[in-house]
Amino acid sequence: MKVLIIGGGGVIGQKLGQRLAARGTLRGQAIDRIVLADIVDPAPISGDVPVDTIQVDIADPQSVAKAVTADVDVIYLLAAIVSGQAESDMDLGYRINLQGTINVLEQARALGTCPVVVFSSSMAVYGGDVPDPIGDHTPLLPQTSYGAQKAMGELLVNDYTRKGFIDGRGFRLPTISVRPGKANLAASSFMSSILREPLNGQAAICPVEDDFPHYYLSPRMCVENLVRGAEIAAEDLGTNRCMQMPGRMWTIRQLIDAMTAVAGPEPAKLIRWEAQPEVQRIVMGWKYDLRADRALSLGLTADDSFEDNVRYYIEDDRPAAPA
Amino acid sequence: MKVLIIGGGGVIGQKLGQRLAARGTLRGQAIDRIVLADIVDPAPISGDVPVDTIQVDIADPQSVAKAVTADVDVIYLLAAIVSGQAESDMDLGYRINLQGTINVLEQARALGTCPVVVFSSSMAVYGGDVPDPIGDHTPLLPQTSYGAQKAMGELLVNDYTRKGFIDGRGFRLPTISVRPGKANLAASSFMSSILREPLNGQAAICPVEDDFPHYYLSPRMCVENLVRGAEIAAEDLGTNRCMQMPGRMWTIRQLIDAMTAVAGPEPAKLIRWEAQPEVQRIVMGWKYDLRADRALSLGLTADDSFEDNVRYYIEDDRPAAPA
Repeated sequence: MKVLIIGGGGVIGQKLGQRLAARGTLRGQAIDRIVLADIVDPAPISGDVPVDTIQVDIADPQSVAKAVTADVDVIYLLAAIVSGQAESDMDLGYRINLQGTINVLEQARALGTCPVVVFSSSMAVYGGDVPDPIGDHTPLLPQTSYGAQKAMGELLVNDYTRKGFIDGRGFRLPTISVRPGKANLAASSFMSSILREPLNGQAAICPVEDDFPHYYLSPRMCVENLVRGAEIAAEDLGTNRCMQMPGRMWTIRQLIDAMTAVAGPEPAKLIRWEAQPEVQRIVMGWKYDLRADRALSLGLTADDSFEDNVRYYIEDDRPAAPA
Repeated sequence: MKVLIIGGGGVIGQKLGQRLAARGTLRGQAIDRIVLADIVDPAPISGDVPVDTIQVDIADPQSVAKAVTADVDVIYLLAAIVSGQAESDMDLGYRINLQGTINVLEQARALGTCPVVVFSSSMAVYGGDVPDPIGDHTPLLPQTSYGAQKAMGELLVNDYTRKGFIDGRGFRLPTISVRPGKANLAASSFMSSILREPLNGQAAICPVEDDFPHYYLSPRMCVENLVRGAEIAAEDLGTNRCMQMPGRMWTIRQLIDAMTAVAGPEPAKLIRWEAQPEVQRIVMGWKYDLRADRALSLGLTADDSFEDNVRYYIEDDRPAAPA
């Protein structure tokens, strides 16, 4: 089978490509080829399975048609404009996160092959005046444009699935931490950088108080859940193809304590506390008391501890020689 | 103030225009002008307030810009491809119900005047595996493309409101019955025609069993709720600008009994029972046990009885000489 990862140049897309290339199978079939597609040509991946890379702009239907071809069995749609940028550039957010999703689904529909489509939604679909805790029957009431666009993507995935055009499934990703690489324009970027940079021997800024609670998942477990998400039998998914991906709630203090438990006291000293009102405004609108019962019952999992997340970063991602 | 009704040629649009022209005020201000816009030039309305008509295709941003002008204070967005047609012609449904809504909101945003936008959503946003009864905190899980498009419209209304581009409010209309005029392509069309046609002395087909339960509102009360909906103070609306419009649940048998109570036994004899599987498939996916607590607390209302609905039809809409 052929697997296409749109957003294959991103952190999760690259890790998913590596995992699938190492695994060699998906949905009980051998993977013949993996294609990583992104707005800039993704970094190549080597493995036993051939991995191609392709430059695709999902805002352009012609460009999408180059990647979403009739021989593709499973499409991961991970590409998105992140929360902070979608908030500051509303037009760009809607062009990529809404129209881009439509373009991918329309091309999948045009194939007539009903490919599996795994859509990365976000816990940012939750917010506003809804009762806590957030469960499988909580309404989506996003308080950012990014969250609104992801909620619209879920409606599209359900509708295109119901019409028989795709076999869709969508997962609301927790905030991924510890995320490797550089800080990005996501409002949640600091939730990795306050750990990653200190673990790399670098200074970092924390823009919120240390009792700020949030809902997290490690990159490693996120990738495992995306693999499992593609493998769930369609008949087990019911009328709503979209659900919360499991994570766990921790405060900033708990994150830092976990880092200290794993890596000693020095990294925490590199964190500077500096309030950032615009970041606070966005992230404090997010819900954090989330329950992912449905995904857990379908075999997806959360990390056992945040110490695990820290260890995964050190094992999988920390540069060999800290700067 | 100037009021624009997009979908002003439709049944509710015409009645709303008439009501506003007779009322002469909205949101505590005198109405200087009403504009009825629709895909075909709407029927003119006479009243003390000047009423213009204009042909607008909401799928075309240039056309939208002709109607959504800087002097408009309140925009009613009632235009839509109805459920049955949006299901059979998916492209048309998305073009009008999603892209058309985006075009109207984008033009409203471009004005920079933050107009009030009253969006007609639908109870068709509900469906699938969610707990009954449906209340203000039930997730939207539409089982038709029409419902998906309306749910996306709600997300857009909330997002554009949150960004300060519009003062939006959206109301999920119950099924409107007794709806005057001709049958249309809505899957719910029979829920009026089995009453309207017999009250007009004509035969009608009922495609479902007589114990089929559904959630109804009269056109007269719907219009009152749309007027009230524009008048709710923004600060009373909270983080979700969209809500269920009140209605009441009745079975087909209760509808027919109400007709008999008001108009005698003859009309019911004109109903022929003939199962229509495609209509059944759509309407049986709709939820009917709905609670509109939030809208009721904001002053919107349902009909007291279905006898009232029948009487309103006879008073407001029945042709003078039944065919």
